[in-house]
Amino acid sequence: MLRTGGASSAHGPWVGLRPAWVAAARMTTPPDSIREIDALVIGAGPAGLFALFELGLREISAEVVDALPFAGGQCVELYGDKPLYDIPALPRCTGRELTERLLQQVAPFQPVMHLGQHVAELAVATDGRWQVATSTGTSFLCGAVVLAAGVGAFLPRKLKLPALDAFEGGALRYHLADDATDVAGRDVVIAGATQRALALACALADRAAAGDAQAPARVTLTHRREVFDADEETIAAFREHLLAGRVRFVAGQPTGIDTGADGALAGLVLLGASGQPERLPLDLLVVLQGLSPKLGPFADWGLALEHRQVAVDLGTFATSQPGIFAIGDVVGYPGKQRLILSAFHEATLAAAGVAAHVSGQPVGPLEYTTSSTRIHRLLGV
Amino acid sequence: MLRTGGASSAHGPWVGLRPAWVAAARMTTPPDSIREIDALVIGAGPAGLFALFELGLREISAEVVDALPFAGGQCVELYGDKPLYDIPALPRCTGRELTERLLQQVAPFQPVMHLGQHVAELAVATDGRWQVATSTGTSFLCGAVVLAAGVGAFLPRKLKLPALDAFEGGALRYHLADDATDVAGRDVVIAGATQRALALACALADRAAAGDAQAPARVTLTHRREVFDADEETIAAFREHLLAGRVRFVAGQPTGIDTGADGALAGLVLLGASGQPERLPLDLLVVLQGLSPKLGPFADWGLALEHRQVAVDLGTFATSQPGIFAIGDVVGYPGKQRLILSAFHEATLAAAGVAAHVSGQPVGPLEYTTSSTRIHRLLGV
Repeated sequence: MLRTGGASSAHGPWVGLRPAWVAAARMTTPPDSIREIDALVIGAGPAGLFALFELGLREISAEVVDALPFAGGQCVELYGDKPLYDIPALPRCTGRELTERLLQQVAPFQPVMHLGQHVAELAVATDGRWQVATSTGTSFLCGAVVLAAGVGAFLPRKLKLPALDAFEGGALRYHLADDATDVAGRDVVIAGATQRALALACALADRAAAGDAQAPARVTLTHRREVFDADEETIAAFREHLLAGRVRFVAGQPTGIDTGADGALAGLVLLGASGQPERLPLDLLVVLQGLSPKLGPFADWGLALEHRQVAVDLGTFATSQPGIFAIGDVVGYPGKQRLILSAFHEATLAAAGVAAHVSGQPVGPLEYTTSSTRIHRLLGV
Repeated sequence: MLRTGGASSAHGPWVGLRPAWVAAARMTTPPDSIREIDALVIGAGPAGLFALFELGLREISAEVVDALPFAGGQCVELYGDKPLYDIPALPRCTGRELTERLLQQVAPFQPVMHLGQHVAELAVATDGRWQVATSTGTSFLCGAVVLAAGVGAFLPRKLKLPALDAFEGGALRYHLADDATDVAGRDVVIAGATQRALALACALADRAAAGDAQAPARVTLTHRREVFDADEETIAAFREHLLAGRVRFVAGQPTGIDTGADGALAGLVLLGASGQPERLPLDLLVVLQGLSPKLGPFADWGLALEHRQVAVDLGTFATSQPGIFAIGDVVGYPGKQRLILSAFHEATLAAAGVAAHVSGQPVGPLEYTTSSTRIHRLLGV
């Protein structure tokens, strides 16, 4: 129910995606399979992607889980189009470009990415390995876990109204695909002014205009004010639909819900400019108010902390739980800087730590990539 | 006497240099000036260049010294044209390209580079700062020193023959410029089969062919065997000069020297294919057998070691000597990997350590380069 597949933020990670991205975004696996791997990386941001690469160099089988439906983490979610200036040897690089480069670098290892799902459970298996299950039912049995969760899993911002949560997955959604068929003939209200909110409103309106029999009967977008956090093109398209009457806009602050005689969700109560509560009737409420990071269940894993960050051994980035390693912004140590370039270093040392843990014996430093024929073979160069 | 300006290795760092490189290579300062700066970086390899960048972000004035006549360190000296595959987000990048990228990144800070000279002395000044002097007489007074010396300063490989050293700087040279004028009418022997050895032989032969009055009377290249470690183009040019009789090649292993009645260096004694010692007369001996790294005087600085590497505080990369920081391949700590990507992380933490040391107060983490207007102003973006 918490999957965020297809959801998007105000910064519009789906805008301008290149084919490699889309492919990566689709690299999901069917639920209910149990996957035995050496290492599971949690988080497909820069730290996690580079950890996959370093694990690959050490021939450690690894897969990755991320709550977002694409790779890149906050790098894409928060500053996909903003330049970073302190990635070494990349004087100027957007978050999206950085992610593309990391995906290209790890491509020789064809890493399986389980996207649009977050880690829901972690337990020790009888053989000492870790059992991990995601929100969409994918299960892993792995020798090691690399926690590269950044500021946490990016999950949809909830609309907090009394008694609303009970409708989640039914009349309340935090995700709706443009081509969803269960909206046919219904009164759909979209709450939010994000890129994704406007894009969905436009897509549904387009379907209705094109005579799609499964299009909704009515599409309404509601937000506090008629101010949108989306790109110009999408705002222009939305305004065109508004003028043509194919979508409606209702300004107001949701303060409650309205249920029908049968207990079904039947409307939102809005406090508008009039100062009087107004009722906005609906059959389906789609809340698209962007994503916000949640550290998730890691707090319950019994990991020792340092200044509220995960404490690690600086030689291996092992946490206090054997087989669980942590890198990137979740980690705390004296002098720690929450920089991507530090996460790269941490990923490299953690990969050595993971290799030692899963092999049960000490591992040396990695051969140099300039000269190692083993590595050249692995990379196909 | 130990300056390596213009010397080059078998891998030919001067081959294919782009303008930015040449400019960087010329960024030297006149000797005998005393330069007061916040921090002196020793080593202009990737670690040192990125340290300059991170110090710049913190507005710490910094300059760099390197024994090589160009920036890039072993990255250019040992694998300038070989691809590295593990620089994060650069799936394939030669040592030279990496250096160019780092020079471009640090360019906004216009760092002064003191190249072709190595650190010869280090002492504590009366005010507690460090006094540093280089082999060519440049002096610094600085609050902090960042030792980023990699495997050491790249110095010319010496020709080890009894009594030869005494002629260094006179009839024995480890460096000679193509347009040197003190070779006029002399019998010049070049010992070595490196790129630089062949290139110098060709340059001198070209000058003689062009009727340069200050060209040598004769140019001879000597090496064990007629096998050259240079690029094809240079070897082809050298062979053309050989065929035309403008240079000579003499195969043999130097086993001694020959001095004239006045005690001047007059010849090399070679053991050739005949098995008999042969005398190769000369006025000037230029030894160009490539460079090899020497850790230099750091061993005498009283820095605490760990496994024969410099021990550091992992939060600040401070050594046991207050104000001296160390990063990159000179450093040892549990789990240390001698990787460029680790040096970048170490440079960043050391920059914070330096900032705290020279300001005498704790410094926080750096603002993010995506959003900091101060950093944008510094970088001119």
